Amino acid sequence: MSYSLEQLSRHVQGTVHGDSQFQIQQLKSLTQASSDDIAFVNGEKYLTQARQSQAGALIVSADLVTTLADQFQLIVVDSPYLAFAQMTHLFADQAEFEGVASTAKIHPSAIIGANVRIGDFAVIGANVRIGDNSQIFPQVHIAENVTIGHSAWIESHVSIFAKATIGDHVRIHANTVIGSEGFGFAPYQGQWHRIAQLGSVRIGNQVRVGSNCSIDRGALDDTVIDDGVILDNLVQVAHNVQIGKHSAVAAKTAIAGSTEIGANCIIGGASAIAGHLTIVDGVQLTGMSMVTKSILQAGVYSSGTGSLDNTAWKKAVVGFRQLSATPINALLKQIKLLTARVDQLESHPNNVDTTHERANTKPE
Amino acid sequence: MSYSLEQLSRHVQGTVHGDSQFQIQQLKSLTQASSDDIAFVNGEKYLTQARQSQAGALIVSADLVTTLADQFQLIVVDSPYLAFAQMTHLFADQAEFEGVASTAKIHPSAIIGANVRIGDFAVIGANVRIGDNSQIFPQVHIAENVTIGHSAWIESHVSIFAKATIGDHVRIHANTVIGSEGFGFAPYQGQWHRIAQLGSVRIGNQVRVGSNCSIDRGALDDTVIDDGVILDNLVQVAHNVQIGKHSAVAAKTAIAGSTEIGANCIIGGASAIAGHLTIVDGVQLTGMSMVTKSILQAGVYSSGTGSLDNTAWKKAVVGFRQLSATPINALLKQIKLLTARVDQLESHPNNVDTTHERANTKPE
Amino acid sequence: MSYSLEQLSRHVQGTVHGDSQFQIQQLKSLTQASSDDIAFVNGEKYLTQARQSQAGALIVSADLVTTLADQFQLIVVDSPYLAFAQMTHLFADQAEFEGVASTAKIHPSAIIGANVRIGDFAVIGANVRIGDNSQIFPQVHIAENVTIGHSAWIESHVSIFAKATIGDHVRIHANTVIGSEGFGFAPYQGQWHRIAQLGSVRIGNQVRVGSNCSIDRGALDDTVIDDGVILDNLVQVAHNVQIGKHSAVAAKTAIAGSTEIGANCIIGGASAIAGHLTIVDGVQLTGMSMVTKSILQAGVYSSGTGSLDNTAWKKAVVGFRQLSATPINALLKQIKLLTARVDQLESHPNNVDTTHERANTKPE
Repeated sequence: MSYSLEQLSRHVQGTVHGDSQFQIQQLKSLTQASSDDIAFVNGEKYLTQARQSQAGALIVSADLVTTLADQFQLIVVDSPYLAFAQMTHLFADQAEFEGVASTAKIHPSAIIGANVRIGDFAVIGANVRIGDNSQIFPQVHIAENVTIGHSAWIESHVSIFAKATIGDHVRIHANTVIGSEGFGFAPYQGQWHRIAQLGSVRIGNQVRVGSNCSIDRGALDDTVIDDGVILDNLVQVAHNVQIGKHSAVAAKTAIAGSTEIGANCIIGGASAIAGHLTIVDGVQLTGMSMVTKSILQAGVYSSGTGSLDNTAWKKAVVGFRQLSATPINALLKQIKLLTARVDQLESHPNNVDTTHERANTKPE
Repeated sequence: MSYSLEQLSRHVQGTVHGDSQFQIQQLKSLTQASSDDIAFVNGEKYLTQARQSQAGALIVSADLVTTLADQFQLIVVDSPYLAFAQMTHLFADQAEFEGVASTAKIHPSAIIGANVRIGDFAVIGANVRIGDNSQIFPQVHIAENVTIGHSAWIESHVSIFAKATIGDHVRIHANTVIGSEGFGFAPYQGQWHRIAQLGSVRIGNQVRVGSNCSIDRGALDDTVIDDGVILDNLVQVAHNVQIGKHSAVAAKTAIAGSTEIGANCIIGGASAIAGHLTIVDGVQLTGMSMVTKSILQAGVYSSGTGSLDNTAWKKAVVGFRQLSATPINALLKQIKLLTARVDQLESHPNNVDTTHERANTKPE
Repeated sequence: MSYSLEQLSRHVQGTVHGDSQFQIQQLKSLTQASSDDIAFVNGEKYLTQARQSQAGALIVSADLVTTLADQFQLIVVDSPYLAFAQMTHLFADQAEFEGVASTAKIHPSAIIGANVRIGDFAVIGANVRIGDNSQIFPQVHIAENVTIGHSAWIESHVSIFAKATIGDHVRIHANTVIGSEGFGFAPYQGQWHRIAQLGSVRIGNQVRVGSNCSIDRGALDDTVIDDGVILDNLVQVAHNVQIGKHSAVAAKTAIAGSTEIGANCIIGGASAIAGHLTIVDGVQLTGMSMVTKSILQAGVYSSGTGSLDNTAWKKAVVGFRQLSATPINALLKQIKLLTARVDQLESHPNNVDTTHERANTKPE
């Protein structure tokens, strides 16, 4: 698996400065690359690191050509990071299994496209449809009436239920569950009465779902993940959640029932978003955010306190609890009134206004 | 799958106002229902939405009959939400697989009840017992000596170990692990020495466990989930935890080792409860709660700060850290002393008490 | 499965006080043990509990021998907790399956060691190597080119990809995913462009990974878990994370990409550690810590606020938000200036310094 600079350059719509027949063995980081590898320079701030690299060739933007052309073969592109992303696909390894395993259990009514690979012990239910060029790994379970588009990548131990519909070019990583039952129970006389979930899950095109995620089916309507959304690992998407186009959700985030997240949002890892909220387009949440109210304006939002030395933290928490009896603004008000009284004393030290409403300035 | 109003009404112990032979195709939300569907009105606050609905029939409480009888067929019940929950089961789809798959690997010593369904490539170990009418999905692994009651629903890729005993009418969603080893290690000379876990897991009747949960076996004694408990997805239940009857735990909550949670508790999603604590009956935790001490009184508890605009949040965190050096009550004390001195100045401007212990009022 | 005190004592390098042929049926807690069981006394603070125990024998340290020898048979050791840990292995149950199941799908090029057990419907890819005495549970998927050392324990539904290399004596609990693709996407013109992940995962010896964990492969370099590390359940380890020797990570923790955690760290459950950080050796994080900056000094660190009664919490959060407009130190400064003015008034009540810069003392 080696490529000439010309081949690589064509793949990323770049131009070669240097020997276009130079052979590249691997794509590596600047620090790990050796003389037959290529690395990428993600902007001027990596210039020093680039100059020290042992790489044979670099992917750079036009403004760095004159600086680096003496030392390296170059592929020049608009966005080196994008070119790097595109080039990784040439160097990626391929899945081992081919064709449809004889041990896979495929219901006769299932419709399987051309050039589909299905791994050992996979179970494909009645009326399932799988589009061309899809890869279904071993031990996957796709239950009855699920529809999957073309060029899917569904890793081992994934479970898909609830007549889910999944678009084209969707990647679902190992051990993820799609379309299991939403957490819906009617409390009545001290017990929980299960609400059978009747909705489905609809996943658009070019969606990526990480490993060990849970995406529940809707209660009556559907749970919806729109085109181009990317989810990291261990993400919880509750029933009837909607996530808009090209939003990203980092690992271990939980989104509670019926919440709608707009397009082009970036949700930091380990965040928790309460149910029945609206998060508009373009919202970014930093890691471990706790969202209990709708966010109706694009921007960056955060919560939590960050870590402190344990001794200092204990004291800060004591202070935090004291805020419940004495908010900051109450202190501010007391200081303001006290200041006015001192102003008065300073201006007229012998003529104090004894009608001053002193009670207000006293701490409660 | 269509039902007459009479059939539906009988299922929820209600009474029909209108044409009892009217045929219902689907159960839908008020906004999505069309003329051959039924929807439910969850109290007077949904009255406007109900009046605008295209539903052919509604589930209502008695007080709304006169208002809605002109426009809709009605099923009248005590609790429309409960009736809705009950009615969902009539409209739910059924699992595809029937009987015991020829590809399932069932140990000859296992005792399988009547009318049990076992899916393809399921593995049932020695001395396992499974009660009547249970559904074991494809690719499930039930290890040796596990006992499961009747009417179980165990979805794909569930793993059950450690001689766990599971009651009747239990539902365990896909890719959940029950009875894997608890996280028990003795630290000794800078290394972790594994404590083989000898306890089991006991799960009562009518329990619901979501997808991708981990419920560990106990160290010496058992981990216990009592009757009627409902767990959402991605929940961690550590070794020797006990959860009391009819408690609910929302998604992504972690409960550390040996903690006991009472009955009728509601634990909000993404909460973390430390080990060796007691949470009494009737405690509610709001989402993302952090519990480091026992809670010995029923009530609603919360923690965290909620999300803020990132710029404001950064400033608030600075303030939070300053609380570790200067708690609120220290400020309050300073203001109080200063106020006393100003009182004194105002009362006797020319006769200040110079013995006043001024040091106390000075910021440290 | 019963053992004489002599047998047990030899296993933990202890000495018997009493009848060395006394037969022990089970290892139990002090409170649950009966007359043919053994329990352990973890230090003097458990002395009262020990005296009330029905156990036939106890594991104790030398200083407790005289106190307890009248009442119990004893095994005397340096560390009773360590001895308990070692002794659990004698009483642990064994996996049911033996040899290599005929239903397992093993690629002919895979090299399987001596005395390896492989469960039903396991899938072992091309060029996989598995060391002697390893146990691969049913339905595991080990993809092509993965290497696993000897004495491995790999539970049901584990998925291992990306040419991962795994050391000796490694235990991986059910439904964990190792070597799935890291969450790497280049944002370009409003869309996410997938970066195929080319790195691997390297796991050392004596490592323990809990159930439902996700450990991603590296982007270019590898994700590395060093010898003796123990991970609890539902842990997220992102691409290119490194975890040093003998560190412990409790359940539901997320470690974001490229973060390096040192040796002998203890990370509390449900913590979230941002990406590209350094945590040095010997750091402890209490539960639910939020780490957004590197920690460069050993010690104990914490974050969050702990749970409060909901009404008090709401008020405290209002106070927290007010900190963003008015940090504690601003209040402190105001009080300090006001105090100076009162000092001045008290010293010279009739001769106020009117040049005093009053503006500073006014609340903004």
